[in-house]
Amino acid sequence: MTVELHPVEGIGEITRGADLGAVIAQACAASPMGLREGDVLVVTQKIVSKAEGALELIDPDDPLSHKPLVERESRRILRRRGDLIISETKHGFVCANAGIDLSNVERGYAALLPDDSDRSAYRIRARIAALSGFTVGVIISDTFGRPWRRGVTDVAIGCAGIAAVVDLKGTADALGRELMVTEVCVADEIAAAADLVCGKARGVPVAIARGIDQSWLRRSSVRTEIVREPAEDLFR
Amino acid sequence: MTVELHPVEGIGEITRGADLGAVIAQACAASPMGLREGDVLVVTQKIVSKAEGALELIDPDDPLSHKPLVERESRRILRRRGDLIISETKHGFVCANAGIDLSNVERGYAALLPDDSDRSAYRIRARIAALSGFTVGVIISDTFGRPWRRGVTDVAIGCAGIAAVVDLKGTADALGRELMVTEVCVADEIAAAADLVCGKARGVPVAIARGIDQSWLRRSSVRTEIVREPAEDLFR
Repeated sequence: MTVELHPVEGIGEITRGADLGAVIAQACAASPMGLREGDVLVVTQKIVSKAEGALELIDPDDPLSHKPLVERESRRILRRRGDLIISETKHGFVCANAGIDLSNVERGYAALLPDDSDRSAYRIRARIAALSGFTVGVIISDTFGRPWRRGVTDVAIGCAGIAAVVDLKGTADALGRELMVTEVCVADEIAAAADLVCGKARGVPVAIARGIDQSWLRRSSVRTEIVREPAEDLFR
Repeated sequence: MTVELHPVEGIGEITRGADLGAVIAQACAASPMGLREGDVLVVTQKIVSKAEGALELIDPDDPLSHKPLVERESRRILRRRGDLIISETKHGFVCANAGIDLSNVERGYAALLPDDSDRSAYRIRARIAALSGFTVGVIISDTFGRPWRRGVTDVAIGCAGIAAVVDLKGTADALGRELMVTEVCVADEIAAAADLVCGKARGVPVAIARGIDQSWLRRSSVRTEIVREPAEDLFR
């Protein structure tokens, strides 16, 4: 088995109310690799926020004008250092600045995270199925930092039709012993892989992951499978 | 640009003293996709530890017999819950059980992390260059959990000839504004991508990542670029 990541070019600028599933289906159909049954589409958060109108006016000359939004979108501040706020968002994600950012957004606006990225993924997936006839998985990805390790990576903030976490419990390792580590966050691994071809500077907002283990294509959500409850977390 | 992940089959069981670079070069040469200039090889930690003899005898009937090793390999314990220890290893990684595990290891042994995974990657890379003539990047990967999100993902614990972190500072986004998020941990993204074709249950210990941005192929190390000093960390 081989996994391929293909950038989907030609998406163009997305504005409020855009029919994102249709835009993506059309761009895939026009691309050399096309779309196929069992593909997983990775859609970066920014175009989802734009299509859903999750934008707020800010003062473009004040570099801190989005900070009140960060407080509003957070249900718990975990750390502050200088201008940096690490918080738990209302969705349960822990990230910098409540996932709000200004890059790849028109001057004078800040993009918030989608209200419910699992539902966003579900809608895009349904629209693509209706238009193309293909059953695909959809992951909404965003770029998060993490403690202990430098650099950011892309992770899944929403998904539909693709497992967020795959449980290998009961699976034997190559020597026939039961595996100790059993829950693999494949949605985050797919999101990270997609960033290798999208890239923050390239402005390609969607990638196709082809060759993903077809047993992972099932009903799922980031909220129920990835978001860890504060009570079971050792670092909150 | 497209990125492809190919599992490298036929590596077989690795024992102490194995010439891992030669084994990998041979397996790649025998595989349908071959090896090419500019490929990045992702080598899972377990076979590196085995080749380097980083194994310790444990009592196979005592599920906690590796715990003294965890203490020994840690320079700082961050959290304990039940049998689980989250610590900072002597290498500077923060992970569960100091990266020690028993799966895919012969009964009665525990595998430790390699002493210096950057050097392990460097050696494998040099050996492959000598035998195949190809200049490739090499990443040593391991499976780590993380706070706030359920499930484990593969990350880079060593690298050679491939950037650990790529700095996009000064790069414009698609709308011409300077990017806010500038340091992307591409080595972790490549390690995560490779896990999609290796997989803990499949027992395929090496993958080829093909199509990686060739400007990322440079001298680098996980220790200097990814490992975050405790003083700059908000969660230690």
